Amino acid sequence: VAPDPASNHPELDELRARLEEIHDIGVASRLLGWDQLVKMPPAGAEVRAEAMATIDRLVHERFIDDEIGILLDGLATYGESLAYDSDDASLIRVARRDWEKARRVPPALAGEMSRVSSAGMHAWAAAREHDDYTSFRPWLDRQLDLKHEYIACFDTTDDPYDVLLDDFEPGMQTSEVRAVFERLREELVPLIAAAGTDREPAFVGRPFPWEVQQALSLEAMSAFGYTAEAMRFDTTVHPFCTGMGTHDIRVTTRFHDTDLRDGLFASMHEVGHGLYEHGVSTSLERTLLCEGCSSALHESQSRLWENLVGRSLSFWRWFYPRVQGAFPEALGGMSVDEFHRAVNTVHPSLIRVEADEVTYGMHIILRFELEQELLSGNLSTADLPAAWNARFEEYLGIPVPDDRLGVLQDVHWSAGSFGYFPTYQLGNVIAVQVWERAIAELGPLDDDFERGDFTRLGEWLRVNLYALGRKYTPQETLERVVGGPIDPEPYLAYLHEKHGSGVIA
Amino acid sequence: VAPDPASNHPELDELRARLEEIHDIGVASRLLGWDQLVKMPPAGAEVRAEAMATIDRLVHERFIDDEIGILLDGLATYGESLAYDSDDASLIRVARRDWEKARRVPPALAGEMSRVSSAGMHAWAAAREHDDYTSFRPWLDRQLDLKHEYIACFDTTDDPYDVLLDDFEPGMQTSEVRAVFERLREELVPLIAAAGTDREPAFVGRPFPWEVQQALSLEAMSAFGYTAEAMRFDTTVHPFCTGMGTHDIRVTTRFHDTDLRDGLFASMHEVGHGLYEHGVSTSLERTLLCEGCSSALHESQSRLWENLVGRSLSFWRWFYPRVQGAFPEALGGMSVDEFHRAVNTVHPSLIRVEADEVTYGMHIILRFELEQELLSGNLSTADLPAAWNARFEEYLGIPVPDDRLGVLQDVHWSAGSFGYFPTYQLGNVIAVQVWERAIAELGPLDDDFERGDFTRLGEWLRVNLYALGRKYTPQETLERVVGGPIDPEPYLAYLHEKHGSGVIA
Repeated sequence: VAPDPASNHPELDELRARLEEIHDIGVASRLLGWDQLVKMPPAGAEVRAEAMATIDRLVHERFIDDEIGILLDGLATYGESLAYDSDDASLIRVARRDWEKARRVPPALAGEMSRVSSAGMHAWAAAREHDDYTSFRPWLDRQLDLKHEYIACFDTTDDPYDVLLDDFEPGMQTSEVRAVFERLREELVPLIAAAGTDREPAFVGRPFPWEVQQALSLEAMSAFGYTAEAMRFDTTVHPFCTGMGTHDIRVTTRFHDTDLRDGLFASMHEVGHGLYEHGVSTSLERTLLCEGCSSALHESQSRLWENLVGRSLSFWRWFYPRVQGAFPEALGGMSVDEFHRAVNTVHPSLIRVEADEVTYGMHIILRFELEQELLSGNLSTADLPAAWNARFEEYLGIPVPDDRLGVLQDVHWSAGSFGYFPTYQLGNVIAVQVWERAIAELGPLDDDFERGDFTRLGEWLRVNLYALGRKYTPQETLERVVGGPIDPEPYLAYLHEKHGSGVIA
Repeated sequence: VAPDPASNHPELDELRARLEEIHDIGVASRLLGWDQLVKMPPAGAEVRAEAMATIDRLVHERFIDDEIGILLDGLATYGESLAYDSDDASLIRVARRDWEKARRVPPALAGEMSRVSSAGMHAWAAAREHDDYTSFRPWLDRQLDLKHEYIACFDTTDDPYDVLLDDFEPGMQTSEVRAVFERLREELVPLIAAAGTDREPAFVGRPFPWEVQQALSLEAMSAFGYTAEAMRFDTTVHPFCTGMGTHDIRVTTRFHDTDLRDGLFASMHEVGHGLYEHGVSTSLERTLLCEGCSSALHESQSRLWENLVGRSLSFWRWFYPRVQGAFPEALGGMSVDEFHRAVNTVHPSLIRVEADEVTYGMHIILRFELEQELLSGNLSTADLPAAWNARFEEYLGIPVPDDRLGVLQDVHWSAGSFGYFPTYQLGNVIAVQVWERAIAELGPLDDDFERGDFTRLGEWLRVNLYALGRKYTPQETLERVVGGPIDPEPYLAYLHEKHGSGVIA
């Protein structure tokens, strides 16, 4: 932990001390959350939900304290006198924005949201296991009620959904998302229709012991920048990544017994999130700037490592001999080009997290639409599974056999994370913008990748994006990294070039 | 979580709510501690130390709040009107005692004790690694100064050591411990002298893959009452057990590559602690009564399962065929009687945590005497290693080759835990008292054990001891369970019967 710079400003020191304390309690909150999903015995759920609700309420209570507002008022002129880019100016600026937003939410509501999320996630896991949407429905209704209460805490906007979106993508409007998604849909629907109907690769169904998959995942992740000194790697039901500081990053994945792709790409995806958090400047440690900038920017990095790197031919020229050597029977006769194609098949499928680069967007557009309809009341939770199934078949052309593979597949709604889904697809869009800027500055990276060397890319991303943490808004951050706003065209061009002909270019 | 019973008493509801909140923060504290020792990446240490300090300070601050005292005052008459055995009367009684004790310690002193313990443990680890007592001595002096400051916060007692002992064994007097230990010493010294000089069993040094040891440990633990639904089992450097509620118990152990005894008995020991916490009445969940009664009573249960059950011939008649089957090469020619003897050798050795049932007591008596002399000033830290070595040879008959294997072997003094050591041996004494009462009520359990059935014992312990949690003082609890005060005679009779002839009876 870097020592706090001497500010010569007692109010700033006091603000820092208060925010550090809140951050410390937040560390406990994140650990309680990670442990709940990765390590906790199932019967611990009820006590855990109470503990998380209390801890989250403490964070909220301490943050919305009047005294923090007084300190921020007192620091306003000082903050403006500092260079915009300085850590201190950024801390004052972002704390002000967060504080004003958090003040809108009564502590009782924040605590209840936390408690219901915790218990709801548990109910969801059981419902999913038993394909029992009915047992989950009351939790979803409760979450929707809470979302309405939450939205009512804020000034009226053009679209109530803006309030929820702002929690994940500060400053982003629903109308902007809709515009990007309209453009994507225009191109994705014909792309999906034109995609070759790839057969399942021959290796699917053959045994892939998960210990071997785990070792391979670790090897790829380590080449990308994973280090056991500062990170963990565990299996869980629904892969995710969290962190308790830049040097305590928790990457999780899951492995499929008869297909190595699921685990490998989930690992590369989650370590992308981890590398982002690990790369935040240590000068921001224990502050509210010490995390990724927004959900979409975060997702841009998981997608960049998973897709732009992890599904590239140059990556597989390096990595495939290792994978083939680890599974000689399952992959014996397969060439690197065949394998590269097998990890880039375009094929409508049921599960979002297993979807390919082309069809993925339609999974998100479906969820973006449904959650807006649930919130507006145009769709009831009773009708949700049927609506899901009908629209899924319309967008992706395949029927949904059960709710486990349909509406129950994702944890997000059980945790109250409405407004989160669209950021995944915005992340895909931004990933290509960031990638193209990196290539423009570094030149082609294929030779590096073919040697298993990802350091030039990793370092460029660290310096230009990761180190910034949350100092700037998502819009400011994107402007700094790629020189402009969000733009779907590079992403569409990438998809067309790679998948447009129906074969992998 | 059981719903709170309607108390019809708003002050009690308010007290409960405050204590539940503090308990929730304590859940976070225990998880941060478990994770730090079991799962955390090493580079996470600095941020983690800050988080733990903040969380622990919050627990202390909230507990010593004036408002809790006002509530307790208001509830005094009501508490006395309730049945002494009721959960509510016990909660008011124990909260009052804890609050009055915690209020005595100025937050600045509590903070300094916490900081010096943290830094002292680091200094101790380095000193132990380099066998360099001199570098550790200033930390020990500082701890002793802090212990004097701490003792000065309380009313004068017959013996200042009483104050320290009370933190681990509430209400226990130093004079009582001394009387028990005098009696033990009379008998242990000749028992040790008469013990046969067992050779190392032939299997020591053969390979025992830790995955196999882990599966066997789980099998034994599960027969004792371990359940994955409510418990976890992990490996760590120094075995321990902790819990985040009755249904989230974390058992840890370590395995030795070339001797299966270390890991198996550490597992059975730690699960004993876990079964105690797991058995606390769920009506006490989220209160300060929801834990074991005292250090000695806790240790009595780890020792009962480890020694009275786990080192019995009837246990091994059931379990040895499984162990032998799992390690056919290492244990191929060994009979169950030979193996039972191998897990019951009496042999003076240097390290407390590896000591057998007979010699263990002398390790504790040595420490109990030395820490009292250090506190009284009769022994200076400069003379401590020489005093340790001389007395160790006197009590255990073997010379101490270096401080690493002598005075630097235990972490306790570096962490300021003076008064803790005697509770280990009191636990051994109480274990036999509890065991004899169980046998008196249930009849002999050998037939059960030989079938691998430990349910009658486990259920008796749960109902008669575990369920009580911290409702009563250790003295009250022991009186309820065994019908009298602590008594070393059953323990001595057990040792004489089992080890008195120099061969295992």
